[in-house]
Amino acid sequence: MDIIKGFPATSDNSSQLNIISIIKHAARNFGRQEIVSRKHDGTLFRYTYSNAYERMQRLANSLNSLGVNIGDRIGVFAWNTYRYYEMYFGIPGSGAVMVLMNPRFSSQELSFVVNHAGVKLIFVDEDMLPVVEAIAPMCETVQGCVVLTDKKLDDAKAGLEPIYSYEECLSESAPVCAWPTMDETSASSACYTTGTTGKPKGVYYSHRDVYLQAMMYALNAMISVKDCVFQIVPMFHVLGWGTPYAATVAGAKLVFTGRYSLEDMNEIINMLVQEKVTLSSGVPSVLRALLNSLLKMDPRPDLSGVRFLCGGSEPPLSMMKNYWDATKAEIVHTYGSTEAQAIVTLNLSKPWLNKELSEEQRWELKKKQGYVVVGLDVKIVDSNGKELPHNGESVGEILLRGPWVLGRYHDAPGSESQFTKDGYFRTGDVGAIDSEGYLKLSDRLKDLIKSGGEWISSVDMENEIVNHPAVLEGAVVGISHAKWEERPLALVVLRDEFKTKVDKSEILGHLSQKFAKWQLPDEVLFVDAIPKTSVGKIDKKVIRSEHKDLYASK
Amino acid sequence: MDIIKGFPATSDNSSQLNIISIIKHAARNFGRQEIVSRKHDGTLFRYTYSNAYERMQRLANSLNSLGVNIGDRIGVFAWNTYRYYEMYFGIPGSGAVMVLMNPRFSSQELSFVVNHAGVKLIFVDEDMLPVVEAIAPMCETVQGCVVLTDKKLDDAKAGLEPIYSYEECLSESAPVCAWPTMDETSASSACYTTGTTGKPKGVYYSHRDVYLQAMMYALNAMISVKDCVFQIVPMFHVLGWGTPYAATVAGAKLVFTGRYSLEDMNEIINMLVQEKVTLSSGVPSVLRALLNSLLKMDPRPDLSGVRFLCGGSEPPLSMMKNYWDATKAEIVHTYGSTEAQAIVTLNLSKPWLNKELSEEQRWELKKKQGYVVVGLDVKIVDSNGKELPHNGESVGEILLRGPWVLGRYHDAPGSESQFTKDGYFRTGDVGAIDSEGYLKLSDRLKDLIKSGGEWISSVDMENEIVNHPAVLEGAVVGISHAKWEERPLALVVLRDEFKTKVDKSEILGHLSQKFAKWQLPDEVLFVDAIPKTSVGKIDKKVIRSEHKDLYASK
Repeated sequence: MDIIKGFPATSDNSSQLNIISIIKHAARNFGRQEIVSRKHDGTLFRYTYSNAYERMQRLANSLNSLGVNIGDRIGVFAWNTYRYYEMYFGIPGSGAVMVLMNPRFSSQELSFVVNHAGVKLIFVDEDMLPVVEAIAPMCETVQGCVVLTDKKLDDAKAGLEPIYSYEECLSESAPVCAWPTMDETSASSACYTTGTTGKPKGVYYSHRDVYLQAMMYALNAMISVKDCVFQIVPMFHVLGWGTPYAATVAGAKLVFTGRYSLEDMNEIINMLVQEKVTLSSGVPSVLRALLNSLLKMDPRPDLSGVRFLCGGSEPPLSMMKNYWDATKAEIVHTYGSTEAQAIVTLNLSKPWLNKELSEEQRWELKKKQGYVVVGLDVKIVDSNGKELPHNGESVGEILLRGPWVLGRYHDAPGSESQFTKDGYFRTGDVGAIDSEGYLKLSDRLKDLIKSGGEWISSVDMENEIVNHPAVLEGAVVGISHAKWEERPLALVVLRDEFKTKVDKSEILGHLSQKFAKWQLPDEVLFVDAIPKTSVGKIDKKVIRSEHKDLYASK
Repeated sequence: MDIIKGFPATSDNSSQLNIISIIKHAARNFGRQEIVSRKHDGTLFRYTYSNAYERMQRLANSLNSLGVNIGDRIGVFAWNTYRYYEMYFGIPGSGAVMVLMNPRFSSQELSFVVNHAGVKLIFVDEDMLPVVEAIAPMCETVQGCVVLTDKKLDDAKAGLEPIYSYEECLSESAPVCAWPTMDETSASSACYTTGTTGKPKGVYYSHRDVYLQAMMYALNAMISVKDCVFQIVPMFHVLGWGTPYAATVAGAKLVFTGRYSLEDMNEIINMLVQEKVTLSSGVPSVLRALLNSLLKMDPRPDLSGVRFLCGGSEPPLSMMKNYWDATKAEIVHTYGSTEAQAIVTLNLSKPWLNKELSEEQRWELKKKQGYVVVGLDVKIVDSNGKELPHNGESVGEILLRGPWVLGRYHDAPGSESQFTKDGYFRTGDVGAIDSEGYLKLSDRLKDLIKSGGEWISSVDMENEIVNHPAVLEGAVVGISHAKWEERPLALVVLRDEFKTKVDKSEILGHLSQKFAKWQLPDEVLFVDAIPKTSVGKIDKKVIRSEHKDLYASK
């Protein structure tokens, strides 16, 4: 795109969009607003925006003392706590780059990220120290570790020295920081994405990216000082999907989960109810675990007015309805990507659609990913790159462009083909957009099943499988087939009480209500668990690889 | 400020914050949302964002045909109609600069603005043609006029040829425009401010300024697609205070008043009620006129949930209470300035203050201008430029800095002293900020009354005068005094039914409930009207000049 200079404006162009202006705003206007954080021992830590801001300033000053310079990369391995929140502002505010480290990555992936980013210092939650110890021998650039703990530091761990205590660093530093004014296009943070092939690729978000997303997110989700935002999405994912920044822009109360597991959501539910949460977000598997715990509560809490933004993959309709029927909480379907820094679409209602659509049509609409937020350009294109109309029917690859969308991966030769000449990022997702602007994804481009020249959406089939009452989880992939190129395979995890009581014909019968006969899976395998990636998505690469010869003889 | 470059980010930096992306967003997602506009004959014109966007594209294409180039300045003289709304996007979208022309400026001021901006083309509402005709002989750069009318054009008016019809220009142009990507720091529009001394000074807003303000405003005012925003503030004032852009970002229904007069607000009130307005804004005199009409209605409409942002000067507490008691509409006190492109503070409540304060304290709080919006830096400084604490007591001049705050006036030698070395704009307003961030203005720096080394706030005294039930309007200025330097003079307009029934001692008695004896005005003059400036504020320069010798003999 040619950028054209017009008549000069008289604005103060030295004012840069910096992350730190978000927390300065919250501290000066909402200094008494509460922040709650669950500690490793299960107790709740409480303080305020004003307290947090002072500690962020101490953190920035301590980085200075630790020899961190403008532009240095700082790795963070941590659970969702107030300390991570402090780093969300203090590290970029100081001019350094916060690199989100996903503890679910393999050691090889983690050490690749550390070396690729050139991480100088690692901040690590005490119970994640073993992960860091394991990769330490492979890390070439790391000069030390800062441990997030309430305890006194043990003797330095082998391979990690020098080792510092986060709390000691803060208490030894001055409580007021003269923040640098960073050029807004400078990196504030980085997140590495694991594609299905190749090495992790780095996305480096500028200060401007984060600032604009925070404003856009808070506006779209209508977050205000009256809200209580619950940070359930791990903060080591794409900036916790942007919620910590959006909540701060709005001055909302913030609640951090600490470490939690899907097997025991009771403490999380208790926090949700007791802190009077009004907004949270998560992937379907987490929201399903939450719902299961909610359904067991007696009395069951009334969550009227509570909204859960659901992303990562499509929330099953049955789950959305169950939330509503059982608790009056609303699931808002969203779509995002690491490359677009979290939120790309939100499925919000419109007054005229509320009037025109029947209740069932409104539920069907909620299955769509939603409309694209302000500031982003979106295109759907066919395999020749030709733009397709927004008629709800034409299916093609989704391309995105905008101020906070990736323009290139950091130092990743060979990735150039993911960008078009006119500046669009190829998401690799396939879908259609209707005349009201609602996007409906069919699948990942690579996960579409190509059978006899036709496409079958693996995602649609998975969602239909999960709608069967006996099914806990399902996955559908395309397996090589001599005659048809690919044919579908379904993996099914049954609920405990239905184990051995449901067979292949039952599943196929269920699917045939929505799918043509030629689309039905050739095989349905009943398994105990479905392989997942480090971010909790179905790992189709692994499934395809494990069953690659299944249809070889057919 | 030094701007420091950090580590490079991977964002698409060719994506610019352009005004046009706001309306593209509204057209693609809220295409069916309604826009209502009152015509000169009183009938209502209705169309949609989708229709408006097509006409904006036609407008941009027609500018091209008319020989308008990137960076050219286009003057607009118009009332609040859908056509002005189209120009708000179509003119800057095309790369030109929309110059807001205030019909309440004098001919000298108007022709100065036209020549200073180098206006090439003037768009003018048919009933404002006489204003343009009057200044035409003094305008050096204007090459033609485009008339906003439903009728066929009359023969070209002398001095204005060539003359075009807006509707013909649009109908002859293509409905799809390939918008240029403007460098976001380029000017999109300009507004001239008349200080109390000297020539009008030009503030040129960049695309980025408008984009950021729109996001910030919509977020702070919590505007959504469910809202109906009523454009009462003239669109020839500081971009209509930003409401047209903020409403569009949010996809809200928009209603334009057309031409109206304070003497007859009945049609405006009818629109407010019938279109189900939820948000509007205005200066106190307009909101008072609205209230007076509301109070006469039978049955009186219930305006629960309706918010009026009130700026320009402080809304009297009695008016805020009357709105609430009579209609349940809420007045939200705001503060803004041309130099900061409308909204600087908003008086929004906070959950903890709602709990802690008594009802009376909450009303008192509403008299403050509110807290500074996200993105802006604010300082209060004493006469030596030393920063004062935010303790609600320390009073000094308000300095502002931020992405959309003015960095300089356009081609205005001698105005440099209004900016500090560290990039702050000196507002000329005096006030204090409390520990919760609420700003309370005392006065304009130049309107403070300096009596015997002490300051008296003319604004506080005016507000107290207006609280007297017999008073319609009041003004207080400082008049030169040999002994005390200055002493207050009060001008009072009584309500019709109280004319001749209230005297000076009654007013002084009323004031002495809130003011010390030495602060009371030496004289109270009862007048029929109070001199106003072109933007409807009390013209203290004129009052001081008319009465400059009043205390000369004392």
